[in-house]
Amino acid sequence: MFYIDLNCDMGESFGAWKMGCDQALMNIVSSINVACGFHAGDASVMRETVQMAIEKGVAIGAHPSFPDLQGFGRRDIKMSPQEIFDVALYQISSLKGICEAFGAKLHHVKPHGALYNQAAKNPETASAIAEAVKAVDHDLIFYGLSNSFLISEAAKLDLQTASEVFADRTYQTDGSLTPRSEPNALIHDTEKAVKQVLQMIMKQTVTAVSGENISLKAETICIHGDGENALKFAAAIGQKLIENKIAIRAIQ
Amino acid sequence: MFYIDLNCDMGESFGAWKMGCDQALMNIVSSINVACGFHAGDASVMRETVQMAIEKGVAIGAHPSFPDLQGFGRRDIKMSPQEIFDVALYQISSLKGICEAFGAKLHHVKPHGALYNQAAKNPETASAIAEAVKAVDHDLIFYGLSNSFLISEAAKLDLQTASEVFADRTYQTDGSLTPRSEPNALIHDTEKAVKQVLQMIMKQTVTAVSGENISLKAETICIHGDGENALKFAAAIGQKLIENKIAIRAIQ
Amino acid sequence: MFYIDLNCDMGESFGAWKMGCDQALMNIVSSINVACGFHAGDASVMRETVQMAIEKGVAIGAHPSFPDLQGFGRRDIKMSPQEIFDVALYQISSLKGICEAFGAKLHHVKPHGALYNQAAKNPETASAIAEAVKAVDHDLIFYGLSNSFLISEAAKLDLQTASEVFADRTYQTDGSLTPRSEPNALIHDTEKAVKQVLQMIMKQTVTAVSGENISLKAETICIHGDGENALKFAAAIGQKLIENKIAIRAIQ
Amino acid sequence: MFYIDLNCDMGESFGAWKMGCDQALMNIVSSINVACGFHAGDASVMRETVQMAIEKGVAIGAHPSFPDLQGFGRRDIKMSPQEIFDVALYQISSLKGICEAFGAKLHHVKPHGALYNQAAKNPETASAIAEAVKAVDHDLIFYGLSNSFLISEAAKLDLQTASEVFADRTYQTDGSLTPRSEPNALIHDTEKAVKQVLQMIMKQTVTAVSGENISLKAETICIHGDGENALKFAAAIGQKLIENKIAIRAIQ
Repeated sequence: MFYIDLNCDMGESFGAWKMGCDQALMNIVSSINVACGFHAGDASVMRETVQMAIEKGVAIGAHPSFPDLQGFGRRDIKMSPQEIFDVALYQISSLKGICEAFGAKLHHVKPHGALYNQAAKNPETASAIAEAVKAVDHDLIFYGLSNSFLISEAAKLDLQTASEVFADRTYQTDGSLTPRSEPNALIHDTEKAVKQVLQMIMKQTVTAVSGENISLKAETICIHGDGENALKFAAAIGQKLIENKIAIRAIQ
Repeated sequence: MFYIDLNCDMGESFGAWKMGCDQALMNIVSSINVACGFHAGDASVMRETVQMAIEKGVAIGAHPSFPDLQGFGRRDIKMSPQEIFDVALYQISSLKGICEAFGAKLHHVKPHGALYNQAAKNPETASAIAEAVKAVDHDLIFYGLSNSFLISEAAKLDLQTASEVFADRTYQTDGSLTPRSEPNALIHDTEKAVKQVLQMIMKQTVTAVSGENISLKAETICIHGDGENALKFAAAIGQKLIENKIAIRAIQ
Repeated sequence: MFYIDLNCDMGESFGAWKMGCDQALMNIVSSINVACGFHAGDASVMRETVQMAIEKGVAIGAHPSFPDLQGFGRRDIKMSPQEIFDVALYQISSLKGICEAFGAKLHHVKPHGALYNQAAKNPETASAIAEAVKAVDHDLIFYGLSNSFLISEAAKLDLQTASEVFADRTYQTDGSLTPRSEPNALIHDTEKAVKQVLQMIMKQTVTAVSGENISLKAETICIHGDGENALKFAAAIGQKLIENKIAIRAIQ
Repeated sequence: MFYIDLNCDMGESFGAWKMGCDQALMNIVSSINVACGFHAGDASVMRETVQMAIEKGVAIGAHPSFPDLQGFGRRDIKMSPQEIFDVALYQISSLKGICEAFGAKLHHVKPHGALYNQAAKNPETASAIAEAVKAVDHDLIFYGLSNSFLISEAAKLDLQTASEVFADRTYQTDGSLTPRSEPNALIHDTEKAVKQVLQMIMKQTVTAVSGENISLKAETICIHGDGENALKFAAAIGQKLIENKIAIRAIQ
């Protein structure tokens, strides 16, 4: 029997602005990454998202970001490791408290956007976030890009990690994602994406753009929640996993 | 033997802007109310303040506010009870997590500025904050204006309360503070202030501006940390309490 | 020949969050009120909105608000008249500069949300905003609720005013809007709304909920841009006006 | 007769937080750079600073920044040239409007902090800001680091530039500032600083740390307004200039 975790960013509305189709996606995924107010998600959105997640039975994670509402956390900000530790600690703590207020337990942490990308390549950034996670609760699971400093730095701190892979992104021979600037960075064809996912789960390999098969640890699959076809795409992935007897469940 | 808690608002710096003399005041007071990022105090200031408080051995409380950095939380914002619950829950949670990350336990919650004043007069506001406190941790102590809805609403929810009095404010016959718009609202003379404080602690009464002695529950005294003479005033109060064999210690 | 101005709030997206269907609505209305960054609209959204308005040939107005992104400017904030003057001056100036950078001229100012509602009832608030408008440019037209302090205070300062009426709101005998808390506050039926609009334009009266006809100055009609049926409703109003030989054009 | 402009960053208070000694410094300098709300300076502080500058007769410039209050605009944010243009346009416009509301004319623009440093080295950033300045008013003077892309890119757009030099920073042989990470980056000795300033003004050269004299265009000297000795240092520079018959006046 194979198991896989599907995770999705959620709680990305802010005030009067709505984003995503959280309710529908929670029927498909097993774990969610909740914005903590720094790139999206105000205190009310966070509370509503946590309540919905509890009802749907999905595992709740914190999704800390650089402080940048207008840029949606997608722009690098040159912060020191100490500053990164501080904003991560603040954000994780806020969501943890909201979870506990409603009887849930915070399950994991996955950095957002530019912070995720920077930490994947920069061990100092990765380490600063992992230190904050450990300071909050040693049992939190650290989600990060497979094969990156996010995973290796968290492991150094004895945190349990979950290696994340992408259904709709192609990979290079060195195991890194093809940069979005490249024309073949994205997989638009659902069938191809499903095929890649099944291979990643069952063989722990991926076929790089060069055609080579490379090994890749795949413990959780990122499902995108925004964009027009996100929901359809997510549903198709979910359906195919079930057809292939792969159980969707959160990291244990 | 008499005991009294001295509390002071702290952690009110923000980024490059410094405010207050936290280090010196922590030598005098027994409990502090730490800004949580909504009227002051960013994630780094909060972490530094918590670390300093642990070193100094003072009890740490959350100081949630309306979201209003530019107005320092001093302006009423017409928020619904649900919105107030949500922002209080978020802020208290963030500080609780920071405390626990460094091995401390959050001790109390005291609303800030306009939120405090509104809740003192409006039971719905007071109740919304108290519900958030209870949701986070039933054992947190709720600090509020003596004789106000802050205390009565928190008591209805079975929260332990701490009735707050002021050293440098005068009182009306009904137990309320003389509005700041009145010429005799403030006590500028340190000796008079000390006299009022001693009477409040030892007799649980205060002499109203009318000359009448009225009863007033006094469990914690608010020490102001800003303003030119704040530190001198605080030190004088502290000194006189010790001379009068009144021990300064946090609410148990 | 009758003329009427149709105005609509626009530029209410913020960063990654989209709101409204500005492009389509600009084909219908004659003037727009552009959010200036305090309740919605960042610097990029403002610039894009101004460029689109120039292309479509609609008159551009500033839409200043209380500083409250998370509350979308819909919550009262207790600010002093001086503070209101200052934030209005700042916001109007920012949009004026953006207009002029692209060769357009700022045409009017209409306060937003809670600031609009507060100023309608409170002459001090209305006067503070009007003073800011006058300080920026005496020739700016001041849009405000017909029959309210917005109009009378601006007139006192010799500003040209535009009395605003609503297609989809009912009126009381005293000329005020039926509060939204009342069941009959809104007109959901497009035909009824059109009928009300035609009467307001051609007779400068409105039939109050009591059945009485009362006089009402109607110079500009507010078209709502959010909500599901906003665009359809706006198009229907526009169509009927044209059929009734009422020309839609900005206040001269 | 020699002339020189002394410029100083001002209006860097925010809400309840005070910074700098603007009033005293305005007696010394000839032009000021006013924070526009993105790294410091709210709408009220801006209006007060403009009023004070008018009274003191100093030339008023806009001091646009990356959007980063908590970081005081000192952290690089990876924004696109279009985003930089947009935030610069917004900020310059807001200050220009406030100036004109009180009868003053905006005189210049000088980017702040990380935006200044980035633009000095990156022609795309420099060009984006210069385009915004030109869009607002072709007659605005563009202040930037002498010998940097700030000056060359602005010149390409036919803007008048003012080459800025520093009294308390040392220079490299290539005309660049010694990085702050180097031990000899700062000149702490007032006499040495004055000597450097006089040489820069009268000979348009500076003695680099290597001992070589290099040529350097010096049209405006940056006076720091924060830090303990800022005021003393500024006064000393001002005094020495006067003694050496160098007139302090804004760029014409």
